[in-house]
Amino acid sequence: MSNPEIEAQLAPLRERVQEQGNLVRSLKEAGAAELDVKKAVAELKARKKLLEDKELALTPSVVSFDRAKMEDLLKRRFFYDQSFAIYGGITGQYDFGPMGCALKSNILSLWRQYFALEEQMLEVDCSILTPEPVLKASGHVERFADLMVKDVKTGECFRLDHLIKQALEKLSKAKEATPALQAECEDIIIKLDGLNKQELADVLAKYSIKSPLTGNDLTEPIEFNLMFATQIGPTGLVKGFLRPETAQGIFVNFKRLLEFNQGKLPFAVAQIGNSFRNEISPRSGLIRVREFTMAEIEHFCDPTQKDHPKFGNVKDEKMTLYSACNQMDGKSATQLAIGEAVSAKLVANETLGYYMARIQQFLLAIGIKPECLRFRQHMSNEMAHYACDCWDAEILTSYGWVECVGCADRSAYDLGQHTAATGVRLVAEKRLPAPKTVEVSEIVPNKQALGKTFKKEAKTITEALAKLSLEEISRAEQELNANGQYKLILADGNTHELAKDTISVKHSSKTVHVEEFIPSVVEPSFGIGRIMYALLEHSFQCREGDDQRCYFTLPPLVAPLKCSILPLSNNAEFQPYTQKLSSSLTKAELSHKVDDSSGSIGRRYARTDEIAIPYGITVDFDTLKEPHTVTLRDRNTMKQVRVGLEQVVGVVKDLATARTSWEQVVAQYPVFEQQEATK
Amino acid sequence: MSNPEIEAQLAPLRERVQEQGNLVRSLKEAGAAELDVKKAVAELKARKKLLEDKELALTPSVVSFDRAKMEDLLKRRFFYDQSFAIYGGITGQYDFGPMGCALKSNILSLWRQYFALEEQMLEVDCSILTPEPVLKASGHVERFADLMVKDVKTGECFRLDHLIKQALEKLSKAKEATPALQAECEDIIIKLDGLNKQELADVLAKYSIKSPLTGNDLTEPIEFNLMFATQIGPTGLVKGFLRPETAQGIFVNFKRLLEFNQGKLPFAVAQIGNSFRNEISPRSGLIRVREFTMAEIEHFCDPTQKDHPKFGNVKDEKMTLYSACNQMDGKSATQLAIGEAVSAKLVANETLGYYMARIQQFLLAIGIKPECLRFRQHMSNEMAHYACDCWDAEILTSYGWVECVGCADRSAYDLGQHTAATGVRLVAEKRLPAPKTVEVSEIVPNKQALGKTFKKEAKTITEALAKLSLEEISRAEQELNANGQYKLILADGNTHELAKDTISVKHSSKTVHVEEFIPSVVEPSFGIGRIMYALLEHSFQCREGDDQRCYFTLPPLVAPLKCSILPLSNNAEFQPYTQKLSSSLTKAELSHKVDDSSGSIGRRYARTDEIAIPYGITVDFDTLKEPHTVTLRDRNTMKQVRVGLEQVVGVVKDLATARTSWEQVVAQYPVFEQQEATK
Repeated sequence: MSNPEIEAQLAPLRERVQEQGNLVRSLKEAGAAELDVKKAVAELKARKKLLEDKELALTPSVVSFDRAKMEDLLKRRFFYDQSFAIYGGITGQYDFGPMGCALKSNILSLWRQYFALEEQMLEVDCSILTPEPVLKASGHVERFADLMVKDVKTGECFRLDHLIKQALEKLSKAKEATPALQAECEDIIIKLDGLNKQELADVLAKYSIKSPLTGNDLTEPIEFNLMFATQIGPTGLVKGFLRPETAQGIFVNFKRLLEFNQGKLPFAVAQIGNSFRNEISPRSGLIRVREFTMAEIEHFCDPTQKDHPKFGNVKDEKMTLYSACNQMDGKSATQLAIGEAVSAKLVANETLGYYMARIQQFLLAIGIKPECLRFRQHMSNEMAHYACDCWDAEILTSYGWVECVGCADRSAYDLGQHTAATGVRLVAEKRLPAPKTVEVSEIVPNKQALGKTFKKEAKTITEALAKLSLEEISRAEQELNANGQYKLILADGNTHELAKDTISVKHSSKTVHVEEFIPSVVEPSFGIGRIMYALLEHSFQCREGDDQRCYFTLPPLVAPLKCSILPLSNNAEFQPYTQKLSSSLTKAELSHKVDDSSGSIGRRYARTDEIAIPYGITVDFDTLKEPHTVTLRDRNTMKQVRVGLEQVVGVVKDLATARTSWEQVVAQYPVFEQQEATK
Repeated sequence: MSNPEIEAQLAPLRERVQEQGNLVRSLKEAGAAELDVKKAVAELKARKKLLEDKELALTPSVVSFDRAKMEDLLKRRFFYDQSFAIYGGITGQYDFGPMGCALKSNILSLWRQYFALEEQMLEVDCSILTPEPVLKASGHVERFADLMVKDVKTGECFRLDHLIKQALEKLSKAKEATPALQAECEDIIIKLDGLNKQELADVLAKYSIKSPLTGNDLTEPIEFNLMFATQIGPTGLVKGFLRPETAQGIFVNFKRLLEFNQGKLPFAVAQIGNSFRNEISPRSGLIRVREFTMAEIEHFCDPTQKDHPKFGNVKDEKMTLYSACNQMDGKSATQLAIGEAVSAKLVANETLGYYMARIQQFLLAIGIKPECLRFRQHMSNEMAHYACDCWDAEILTSYGWVECVGCADRSAYDLGQHTAATGVRLVAEKRLPAPKTVEVSEIVPNKQALGKTFKKEAKTITEALAKLSLEEISRAEQELNANGQYKLILADGNTHELAKDTISVKHSSKTVHVEEFIPSVVEPSFGIGRIMYALLEHSFQCREGDDQRCYFTLPPLVAPLKCSILPLSNNAEFQPYTQKLSSSLTKAELSHKVDDSSGSIGRRYARTDEIAIPYGITVDFDTLKEPHTVTLRDRNTMKQVRVGLEQVVGVVKDLATARTSWEQVVAQYPVFEQQEATK
């Protein structure tokens, strides 16, 4: 992107972003009305999008990629495909076939090695079905929704932003569209993300947008919660949801996990599992689906100690950082070592920076192209209200930059929410430098009097009293002194008047040695399907001069199968060698495929290339002679070497586990040109 | 069980089973009424249960097991525990903590090696959310239900068989119970499984059984479908379920998988994933839960060729087989090599036998006790109507014999059902020994005439005509000839009269080279949670003379962590050694735990024993001296050896991957007795 010609084309767009970025800054500084700030931000995002679209259009690698051709191959060799297709299929659901499943499972294995094993994390495996109160506390019941409209006659549903975009695009492309109308439509489309429910309803009305399928009227916008609901147990009374993320399972187990870690902080917990989102209109293949695998980490630490003991190991890792500031200034992302970024306070703390660097190392190890990876910081207006700092690992695909891993400092939000909802204190303790004396106030219930007055309610009242905050206790004391009674408000909204004979306030002091606190959480969250999809795009290739011979250059570490075994022909003499090789590969835990079908060796190589098998062993007539040898072929270069029958499995093992490289193998073994077709 | 004293006690019970088994046989032979046979079978099962309960009561190892003590340890060290406990918890849902999750993931890894890799299976990963038509075809919508009753006032639900059992047990233990009543209750309890809905309702009425919680009346028995229902997409119109098994995902992908395998049979497909059952009243810990992990295999083969190329490798595997015949004769299970069992036609075919042997090898490899494993054949009356033969791997636990792996020959049932439901022919082809000429009949629609008469319906009619069977076509021909019209019945029940001018029947002959057939399916299906639970029971131990020091003897291959590192004290000089060991273990991909907390070394060993860590490395004062050495301790024997610092990681790697045994290590390295407590 440092090409001066391209930069010249981008300069005016950059300027327009910066101009608007400065306006947003000055509005905020001046304490302008919220609505004005929001509007300015929407315009800022719109200008950013124009800049980014232009940048992408000028990047040749993205333009030249033929998505339809790749998708055809993925479908034909069943990497993945739509679920339940023989029943008509369901959008947004995919089944992974043998190659997709193996690729996914290899990526997850490597993830476990990179994170769970290397960082000594506690891995857990929690329930998918989640009762409603848990997701009320997390905010998902209230806020995890998209706007939609329905066709008033057929009930067909449309995701509102998608519908408006489609309708306005059509409108502006119509013959009778004036330049003014075209500009208006374009303006709305790029601001869509920033519009609220009412503003979107106004757009619907202004342009009389109807159902694109039937031309029928549409309902007003409706908030549609994206969680799948069900009932747990037979009564129909326990409402539950399929979890929309795996994180909550970790938070609700915090106490058990802290105890398992002998009460010590920091520690990190990992979980791999499926989550579910009932998308209104899923699209973009694996990128927006209804059922997906996530790998999440929750790193719990003392909010005042966010340094990381292993930060030194990664501090020189060069990252492409697209800071909020650069985004507002219309500048490009910048290259920076993560150590410098943390020193300069661009990245909030070492722990966050450590994980960002590790995320990058992992993504590069599985085969993501470094030039197509950046970390984009959330701007303050798009960050969840509880987060301190948040950087998304975005990967460039033919769909544009796609968020594949989020990495957020979520502060104490989640543990705080569950503590408030359950009364179970999800806190850690730390030793004070010196013991201190604290004043304690508590309400002492007179059980007999309470029981007499309130009968069955007495227990609920006693429990509520035990949970009162210090402030509330001091208010109770004041009320009792002033009016002779205290009005207790219960969680369910009921109130009780408690007279002086039923409760009293006791003050005491005690010496404490430890201090309780709610830990902070740093959360790296990986969308495995999106990463897989990006990886497939990055590794898709066609042979020079033959664009029908396509293949994937997946690194051996994650390739679905490590090796193929191809007897040159169906000559029976080859069979014992083929079988022996297959069982040796199995013993070495190397997944492989024997292709003894008819068809020329070249055709069979092409078939194994399509399913990304990095190495191929061919048994030919020289194999039959002493010393027994086979050829070993590399998928990417199509070069071959001749290796001893006894050595070849060891060589493949070293290649598949990245202990050696193809270049080293070529240096060590004689190059081989072409098999004899017959003896 | 070959103890003569025990056998003497069991003899009369065995005789009673055999007597009833003979009755069932003779009723079947005589073609007795179905009801009479069912009653006789219920009595047979009742007698079998009495025999089995007695057998178990006389087996000391089961009786002496202290389940509460094990469950306390599992909870305390968070192997697993109830989900969402801070919200009150949900029965039948469990979260796996760090040790449970690692154990599960190690078992699944080994499963992949034993089955997917070793047998070159195609592993897939299919959707959990399943649309209703798929589960209608599989039979789950109609038949996957349990009977329950509700408290008429509170709506509380009870699983009917559990409720009756509990009520009658209470009744027969009451002071006023007569011996006659006691016998009556006992008789019903042991026959419960065999009673139908009406018979159970009669029992409810006869003993005036009320809600055990409130004493309120109960509703009539209700069929409750055990699948969790939800809606897919926003319209609320697409009904879906959480899959009750993973198998259906494989069947609906059969065509893609066959094509991936280049059209060749046999091949096997594997899937690991979660399934869901909305149990009415879950119980027995991990054994009956609402959300669980399964590992299923569908082996597709030609129904006329069920031999297996690798059967020779397992034919000498000795198995404990509890045949249907022995069950009916009151005999014990017998020891038999699987090769003999197949030759004797006790096990239906080689493929089924091969999988049974492999299942056994896998279960023993993870640590199931051989004497607590048997394969029980389904009796003809308990086998699903479509299955040819079915053997369950049952493991003996403190809950009795628990079905952990099913292994069934399901014939062509599933593919046939989905073919019928979708019209997509889920078939394979095989080459005929010689081409043959076949007569073909088809109905040729007169499109114009059909369109004129039936308008929009014409398309449906044409499609239905194309799907008619040969028999139906010949019936159509007869009707047309006789009455001049044919009455077509559509799948939705509508009928149409088709006159002679709208259709005609055409006969022709063609030469075919291949034959289509629906493959047979052999299905081994593993319940991972149940296997894990059984394994935990089998490996639970307490130290002799100290029943507070409990531990698990899990084999190193599946143990959650492979090794601990314990510095003798918090002396700072130990730290570099501890760190170096930890990073070497990580590099060798060995999961481990550093315990540098205070506490005596013995206490820390005990803590690591509790979480089943098989080996412990201790860094002590001798480690600081040249040549640097550490001690290596074995969890099971508590013996220690002294090993060089540079060698120890290699030794642990060999132990953890079963390349060497502790006995070999003891033979090679000097035994070590006791650390110096101080320098």
